[in-house]
Amino acid sequence: MLIVLGSATAAPGRRDELLDAARGVAAATRTDRGCLAYSFAADVEAEDRILSIEVWADRAALDEHMTHDHTQEFLRVAPGLVDGEPVMSFYEVATDPG
Amino acid sequence: MLIVLGSATAAPGRRDELLDAARGVAAATRTDRGCLAYSFAADVEAEDRILSIEVWADRAALDEHMTHDHTQEFLRVAPGLVDGEPVMSFYEVATDPG
Repeated sequence: MLIVLGSATAAPGRRDELLDAARGVAAATRTDRGCLAYSFAADVEAEDRILSIEVWADRAALDEHMTHDHTQEFLRVAPGLVDGEPVMSFYEVATDPG
Repeated sequence: MLIVLGSATAAPGRRDELLDAARGVAAATRTDRGCLAYSFAADVEAEDRILSIEVWADRAALDEHMTHDHTQEFLRVAPGLVDGEPVMSFYEVATDPG
């Protein structure tokens, strides 16, 4: 199992577009093989800070997800809608969730 | 390292109070020993669905956090501000984040 936690700051005036793109890729991604959880959420302390929470059955499922059209489309548009680089952290999970 | 992912639905009319309480406990918690990340965020697909993302150095740090006044205060008020029970998942991390 793999957890991916990310955060990015919406570029000035592009938050709505970013959230629309995020909603689109999230809905499509939850049908991807091995996707156990996938959400975008706005930090309650800084609403332009958008967090992503992904849980994958394994690395192969995430790799497969990266090849899908909906993922590639999001990766195409997202850089123009965020300020700077997103911060992504990847965690291999030792035990199934308690 | 331990990741805790949670989600809860704000009770009708109580979302603002829940977010205020969440902001308070989040700010205090990030000063707790072993707290590597701690945020609440509103799901962009369902704004009443509030997600929590916690990363702890180890289980002992989380256990210690649970004893603090700010945690106990949040646990006291939160049940009245959410609909039903929060869903919490605990993941032991095998490798440091890549």
